[in-house]
Formats: sequence, C-alpha cells, structure tokens
Amino acid sequence: MTSAPIIILVRPQLGENIGKAARAMLNFGLTEMRIVNPRDGWPNPSAGPAASGADIVLERAEVFDTLAEATADISHIYATTVRKRGVTKPVLTPEEAANGMLSAQGRSAILFGAERSGLETDEVAVARTIITVPINPEFGSLNLAQAVILCAYEWSKHQSLESPPKVELDPPAPQEELDGMIGQLFGLLEERDYFFPPERTGATKLTLRNLLTKPGWNSLEIRTLRGVLSAFKERKR
Amino acid sequence: MTSAPIIILVRPQLGENIGKAARAMLNFGLTEMRIVNPRDGWPNPSAGPAASGADIVLERAEVFDTLAEATADISHIYATTVRKRGVTKPVLTPEEAANGMLSAQGRSAILFGAERSGLETDEVAVARTIITVPINPEFGSLNLAQAVILCAYEWSKHQSLESPPKVELDPPAPQEELDGMIGQLFGLLEERDYFFPPERTGATKLTLRNLLTKPGWNSLEIRTLRGVLSAFKERKR
Repeated sequence: MTSAPIIILVRPQLGENIGKAARAMLNFGLTEMRIVNPRDGWPNPSAGPAASGADIVLERAEVFDTLAEATADISHIYATTVRKRGVTKPVLTPEEAANGMLSAQGRSAILFGAERSGLETDEVAVARTIITVPINPEFGSLNLAQAVILCAYEWSKHQSLESPPKVELDPPAPQEELDGMIGQLFGLLEERDYFFPPERTGATKLTLRNLLTKPGWNSLEIRTLRGVLSAFKERKR
Repeated sequence: MTSAPIIILVRPQLGENIGKAARAMLNFGLTEMRIVNPRDGWPNPSAGPAASGADIVLERAEVFDTLAEATADISHIYATTVRKRGVTKPVLTPEEAANGMLSAQGRSAILFGAERSGLETDEVAVARTIITVPINPEFGSLNLAQAVILCAYEWSKHQSLESPPKVELDPPAPQEELDGMIGQLFGLLEERDYFFPPERTGATKLTLRNLLTKPGWNSLEIRTLRGVLSAFKERKR
C-alpha cells in the first residue's frame, strides 16, 4: 500500500494548468491524477505541451463526472483551501498533511478546486481534513500547479527519492597538518620581523590562528598552501 | 537584521519568468530581487503581467552587470543547481539551507541560473553552499519559478506568516456525555431485543462502544445525537 496521495483536480478550467499540475506531480514522484468534470473535456490538447514531458501522468489520468465517483475508493480525503472562516475541520499545513499520509491506512487523495474559484463548500464537505498553505497574509497568490507542487514536495520528503545528493567532502585536515602550516607561516613572518612590537606578538598570532582555522581546509588544500608558503621562503644570501 | 534571503536571478531570459519568480517570492514574504545581466534588458514589459500583483518586488528589483557586483554585500551565497558530479561544496536541501539562514550573521542570497542552462561553473564558484531540490531521479523538470517558490516556502516556515491557520475545534465531549448517549442507545436496543443471543451481548456492546468512541464527537454533536435517539424511543402502547 503506497502512501502516495492521488491528486484530484475538481472542475479544472484550462488544459494548460492540468499539464502543469502533472509536471509538478511527477517532479516529486506522484503519478496518479484524477480529473472531475473538466470544463473543456478530456483529453485536452493544451495539457500535453504544458506537462513538459510528464505525459505518463496525463495518459493515466482518470476522468469522472462527479466528485463522489472520484473519491469512492479513498479513505483519507484532504481539501486544499485558502484560509476560511467557519471551518469546522482540522486545518493542516502541507507538511503536517504529508506526515499524516505516511502512517495512514488506505489511500489518500488531495482535492484542488477550479483555478478561479477553488473548491465549493459542498466539495470541501467530503473531506475530513483541510490543507492550507501558510502564505503571506498580504499577498496570497498561489496558482494551481504551485499548490500541487508544494503538497507533492512535502510528501516526497519522506520518500526514497529524498535520499539527498550528499557529497562526500574531504574532511578538514588533522590538526597537526594545520599546525604545521601555521608554524611554517609564523616562521616566515618572523624572518621578516612581522611580529612587532613584541608585546603584541601573542595577540597577533592568535588572530592569525583563528583566521586559518576557520576554513577547515582538507589535507590536500593544506599541502597546496604549504607549497605556496614555501615559495615565500627567503633565499639565503 | 533579517534572515530573508535575497533572490538573485543570473542572466534570466524571459521577462515572464522574472515576473513569475517575483510572484513566487512574495507569496512567502520575500521581497528583495536582484537581476544580473538580464538577456532582454530591464524593465521588461512581460514581467509585470506574470507577477500577478507582485509588482512591488519588480519595482524594487536591482539590476547589475556582473554577479560580483550583485553579491558584493552578501555574506552567505547559495547556488541552486541540479545534481552534479565533482561538486566540492556542501549540498543542502532547501529546508536545510533555510535552517542555516535563520542563524546566520550577515545577509544571505540564493542564486538561480538562466532558465535553459542554469548557473555556469564560475557562477557556482562564488557560492559557499549548493542548494539542490531532491527530485524524482527519472523526471526532474523544475522551472525557475518553481525552484524559487520551494526555497521561499522553506524559508517562510520559520517566519511569523507561518503562524498556521489553526481552527479552534470543539474538543470531544467528556466521557460521561458519551457514556450517557451510549447508555441511551443500549436502552433503546434492549427494548427491541436487539442483543440476541444473550451470550453475544457483551461483544456486540463492545463493538458498538468502539465504533461510537472513534468520532470524538463534541458536546453539541452528542446532544444532537441524543435528540436523534430520543426520536427512536418506543411509544407506550
């Protein structure tokens, strides 16, 4: 049993937006789309180009006449809405909703309303839970595909595709290598009477040590820098 | 000192995409955009309509000839890239990067490359950290505005606009109210000899109790249901 939610577009208007929603879904591993009563029928020739290659989502999309049919086999229905007064259902963020889907028994689905008007009250009524994206109270202007992508993104965080692209970085060099380089530098500076007046020497060295410690250079970098420093060694006259 | 990152678009191509990026930003409270060497100059008449009202971001956008000028005052530069080989910088998710920005001293900025090609190697080089959105390995197709919105969304989670639209739900009724209703129901069922055979009565009641406990009805709902049950009381003949 997958925890992947089915994305249900309710009365979508533009085929282009259906395509963009498909693209948003597939980016984060969601493949099951249902479409309820699309305004311009189905298939819609504008959907494919907007999907930018997410054709498989559109090809497999199922179309229903009514929301009741589209949700008949769903155990956990989430309705996306903007902030509303008088809601008497739990309101979750996309993140909280995604967490809930993971542990849920039975399939989950997320309803998205028509582009202009959103979900109607009687459409929200079939959902047990509301999803609202926390948004700038002075500028809330999410389009359909953006609402879809945020929900899909949050769901995907718990999936294997999340396995982050961790880079194996070389660790900072062992301290003795850093100390070796710092010692080399101090030696060079002493040759040049850099540390003056003498009573300031300790503080100046401390400043330099802090500065050189901060980067966390790795062994290779330290060796490179020691090569650089070697170039500064005074020639014996 | 704000932790809000500055969004820097490097060599963006279409004005429409600059507008969409502005819209994506403002949804999540980001207002500072910088544009480096936009292909079609600036201002760009296609940007405004695509911003869907986020004009303030476009009006305040600063344009620079070079990335060096655009990042001169930035302490923490993040470069967004798709997964790459040979990267020798830390690679964070948008979520991890947002967490880092919160505690950072000095301003942060996120670089986004040209729509088609992304950031060049020498542009990535100015950044100390990489941001890569974990994405479907078989279908990675994020557009500019989508990449921007995911970064902005993650940053916004820690801001006050996050204050989630919690609904004050009436809590489940105290147990004695539920028990009162269950008792009323059992009484009604006994009147009707529902519990038959007698040796099954305990198990049947247990099943019903579990079933009626699950909803977590509140006091008002319980009172309503008791009214319903009252309607089923047998009339004295």
